[in-house]
Formats: sequence, C-alpha cells, structure tokens
Amino acid sequence: MDVLAKLSEVGRKVDPVMERYLRRNLSDEFADVVLHQVKTGGKRIRPALTITCCRAVGGDEGDALPAAAAIELIHNYSLIFDDIIDHGEFRRGRPTVRKAYGDVMAMLAGLHYREAIAEAINDCRNPLKLHELIARTIKDVIEGERLDVLFEQAGRAGEPYVVRHRRLEVSMDDYLRMIRLKTASLISAACVAGGLVADASPEQLRALEEYGTSVGMAFQIADDILDIFGEEREIGKKRGKDIVEHKLGNVVVLLSLEELAEELRGELLSILRSESVSEEGVERAIELIASTKARERAYSLGEGYVRRAVEALRALPESDDRRLLEELAEFVIRRRF
Amino acid sequence: MDVLAKLSEVGRKVDPVMERYLRRNLSDEFADVVLHQVKTGGKRIRPALTITCCRAVGGDEGDALPAAAAIELIHNYSLIFDDIIDHGEFRRGRPTVRKAYGDVMAMLAGLHYREAIAEAINDCRNPLKLHELIARTIKDVIEGERLDVLFEQAGRAGEPYVVRHRRLEVSMDDYLRMIRLKTASLISAACVAGGLVADASPEQLRALEEYGTSVGMAFQIADDILDIFGEEREIGKKRGKDIVEHKLGNVVVLLSLEELAEELRGELLSILRSESVSEEGVERAIELIASTKARERAYSLGEGYVRRAVEALRALPESDDRRLLEELAEFVIRRRF
Repeated sequence: MDVLAKLSEVGRKVDPVMERYLRRNLSDEFADVVLHQVKTGGKRIRPALTITCCRAVGGDEGDALPAAAAIELIHNYSLIFDDIIDHGEFRRGRPTVRKAYGDVMAMLAGLHYREAIAEAINDCRNPLKLHELIARTIKDVIEGERLDVLFEQAGRAGEPYVVRHRRLEVSMDDYLRMIRLKTASLISAACVAGGLVADASPEQLRALEEYGTSVGMAFQIADDILDIFGEEREIGKKRGKDIVEHKLGNVVVLLSLEELAEELRGELLSILRSESVSEEGVERAIELIASTKARERAYSLGEGYVRRAVEALRALPESDDRRLLEELAEFVIRRRF
Repeated sequence: MDVLAKLSEVGRKVDPVMERYLRRNLSDEFADVVLHQVKTGGKRIRPALTITCCRAVGGDEGDALPAAAAIELIHNYSLIFDDIIDHGEFRRGRPTVRKAYGDVMAMLAGLHYREAIAEAINDCRNPLKLHELIARTIKDVIEGERLDVLFEQAGRAGEPYVVRHRRLEVSMDDYLRMIRLKTASLISAACVAGGLVADASPEQLRALEEYGTSVGMAFQIADDILDIFGEEREIGKKRGKDIVEHKLGNVVVLLSLEELAEELRGELLSILRSESVSEEGVERAIELIASTKARERAYSLGEGYVRRAVEALRALPESDDRRLLEELAEFVIRRRF
C-alpha cells in the first residue's frame, strides 16, 4: 500500500466524528446542505497527520480523533468559502455547495462548520491550547486567502476595493508568505494538534510545527506545478485553472516571469491580465512557462522544504509513525494528483 | 439618564476589548476592513446585558468584559453576513462592510470576527462552558437566518434552492421559532454568559436564560413593529424595509393577514410576492396592515414576553442591577428606535 492509501485509511476515521459534530443542533431540513461538503470526499491527509503525529510522540489514537475531525472540518470550512469567493462550480468532479444550493445557503452552511469545529475542540485534551491554535491558524488562512485574491491580475470588477488594491508585482517573498498562511499554516496546525492532545514536550511541538509547515509549503508548491503541468484526468480538474483565475500567486508562473525575455514576459502578463482568459490563452501561457526552467526550479524549491520536514522529524523517537511522516513528506512533492 | 443611555454606557466598555481581539494576528492592511463593522457604532445592549447579569448574580464586572466583548463581536459577526445575504448597503446611516469593501473582503473580515470571538472566550472564566454556549447559540442564529430567508415571498432568482424551498405559508409558531433562533438566542446567551463568568447557580442560570429569551422575543417583535410603523428619522432607515425584502417573517404582517378579508389579504400577499416592491407598494402594504389590529396585537404579544422576563428576574436577589434589567425589559417594547 502506498503512503497516500495508508494515510487516507487513517484519515477516514474522522468521517463519522465530523458528521456527529455537524449534526449537533442541525435541523433535518438543513442537513443535506451542511453535509454536502464533507461528502464530496477528499484524501483526508490533514486528519491523518493529526493522528499520526499524536502516535509519533507516544499519544493515543483515540485522543486524537476529535482534534483530527476539527482539523478536517477547518479544511472543508475553508473550501466552502473558497468556492464562494472563486465562484467554483465543481470540486473532485462533484458540484460545490454553492453550485448545488446557492451562495446564501453555502455561506450559512460554512458558518455552521465553524461551530462544529468549536464543539469538537471542546472535547479534546488541552482544549484551551487547541482553541488558541485554531483561532490563530484560521486567522492565518483568512489572511492568506486575502493575499491570494489580491495577487489576481484581473477580474472582480464588482469589487472596487479589490481592483484598487491588487498587487501587480508579487515577489517570491510575497508568494512564500501567502502560501505559508493559506496552506502551510493549517497543515502545521494539524501536526501540532496531534502533539497537543498527546501532551508532547515543547521541543516535540516545535518539531511538529516545523515538519508541518515545511510539508505544507512543499504541498502547495506541488499543487501549483500540477495546476499548470498536471494530467487533467489525474488532477480531476482543468489544467491552468490558476491562469483562468488570473493568479500571479502560483510559483511556476512567478519563476517563469523571472526568466522570460521582456517581450514574452509581457505576453504572459497580458494573458493573466485579460478580463477573460480564453482556452488558447491558457495554452499559450503554459507554453511560455514550459519554455523556461520554472518547473524544475519549483521542484527544487519544494524538495528543499521536504528535506527540512524530514530533518525536523529527527527530534521524534524512531517509529513506524515517524517513518510514515517521512514517506509522506517525500510523496508530497512527487505526487501527480 | 434613561435605561438605554445607562446600558449603553456600560456596554461601551467592551469597545477597546473587542478591538484588542480583532487586532490580534491582523495585518495592518486588513485592519480598516475588519474594524469598519465595530466602528459603525451600535447601542451595545448585548454586552451591557452580560455585564449587568454578571453583577446581578454577584459577579465582578472585570470578569465579564471578555465574555461581553465576545457577545458583541458575535452580534457584529452576524450583521456582516446579514448584510452580505440581504445586499444591505447602509446601517445606522453608514456604509456596510460589503458596501465599503465588496462582498469578498466583507466575508473574509466576517470570518476573522469568529476567531476573535474564540480568543475572547478563551480568556474568560469557565471558558469551556462558554465555548459550548456560543457554538450552540451561533448554530441557532444561522438556523434562524436560514428560516428568515426561506420566509421571503420573492427575490433571490439566482438561488434556485431558496426559490424552491421558500415557505408560502408561515404560521405564528413558525414565526416565533424563527425569531427565537435569530434574535432571542443571542440575547439569552448574553445573559447566560454573564452568569457563567460569575459562577451563578443552575437556578440563576435558568432565570437568566428565561429573562434573556423573553427580552429577545420582545425586542424582535418591537423591531418588526418599528419596521412598519416607525418614524424614519428615529429608526434611521427606510420604513417598510421588510416589505421591500418580501419578508413574511414580520409579526405585524403575519397578524394583519389573519384579519384581512380575502381580497385585501390577497393584495398584501401579492405586494410581498412581486419581484420588485415599489414605494407605492410599500405605502399600500402599510395602509393595509394599519387597517387591522395587528399593531396593538403585536404590542400585547411583546408585553407578554416582557412580563415573563420580569418574572424570571425574581430568582435573583434584589439589587440596582436587577432593577436595571427590569427597566430594560419594559423599555424594549416601548422603544421608538
């Protein structure tokens, strides 16, 4: 069994737990809307990290379950709002909550998730530390999402504030800060949460945080590469979605801009900045990016984070769980979906 | 000084506390967007209730402040999303967050509020009970908002699910359930939170809950009456906003429908059900409602809740604070804004 299958099997244990918290104080009539998001599936990597990190520092899997459920609920909470913000219609081949029930119901369902998260955390060991971790993490994710929107090069004509404040230049530092907030922060919290419910030492908690942050950075970098170069049947969505969404916050786009000669650089930017990006536009953008070394350089960048992740794990005792975490870090950058 | 001025003075003490939690882990660039909502003012009645209820059961005002801040943050959190859902442009004469910064930024700011709420609760006495109370309460508010939307008689053409599920008949029981969830639940939580931080007895907590729920019911009933019959310069908004928004979930509308003869009843419903309600439509609807005893009957209904609220207070020792709570209950139904 490969690392992803192993982790997904662990992660799926939170499904009934998530459902229990979502169903608490939920009217029958609203249940379909609320449960839609968690029923669209997902690899359940984040809760698997919580459970595996808990075990890797000597904790009990049972203690990790409500925390792991809270973490996966946060991920799904962010996806519901992400889809509202980006007008997303399909995810993993299924209609998004907003597509199935409209923006208003999706928003209300999303807000309900946040309360299920609070209830799950309340049932954990060290609940106050977890509440604090989760509040800080969600604030990070919100700020990351805000930056990601501001890094878009066109669109959102109905939002004058966004149009006025968008960033026409995005540095590699800006990008790394954005993905640290948007993606790595929650993956890091997944790992730290596993440590907290196992009463891990401060040194172990630091190691889990460093591991999770680095894995998260590598994960997002791989996601960006797949968006531009992935096989559509493997990634389950249209290639170049980031280009259609005018996103400068994609590492291969950014790295290719560094390399392209003035004129071609201008051409790529003008595609990103056109009000509506055609299929030919997407193809041409991918061609321009592919003419540079951006893909390989993005991989090297991701591999650097993987090395850091594996090094951080040295602070933990050797075990099958630690080995699984190492394997995951290496898988994350090689993955094809 | 009248009861409202007294309570507002108490309630305003949470302003710096709210700001502190909102500013935690907040980027400078996002601060204006996030702080906009709490800076639009408001009477601060809910946090005043938390503080006064805490004192009324022998607690210390200082212990009540973070809980009171959390309660007022919840109110503002709900207003941000309310305005997104109802496309609200002005509130208390100032632009709403979505009007000033667009729906996307308003949504992200709203989500940030929820984390400030969690952080404030974490700093309270009895934090776990408060986290639970708040999660249950916000789930209630969401369900109340969902019902309020489904009680609309037209509009939301872009949301097929809402259109398909709207309630063309709303009974008085449906209405009372909706306002209990949408409005009374949070006012009740404001009172119970004050009790929890003061280590109130189970009997006192029950009394505070009953008081808060009853005051909340009376408050919403008065709000509905003011929407139809208030003086615009006093209520600070257009009269008949509920009619423009096709709301059957307004007590005077509902009570008038019980009384109106078949034909006039049909006329009022057809105004509520027209895609766009004209100014003449609003005037005619108000005229139809005014031709019934709905206004007086709504007042009696509200006064019944006020009596229940005052009776509930008998479980608390006599004090200036208890007297203030009594005065508030009586004020709520008589208020003109």
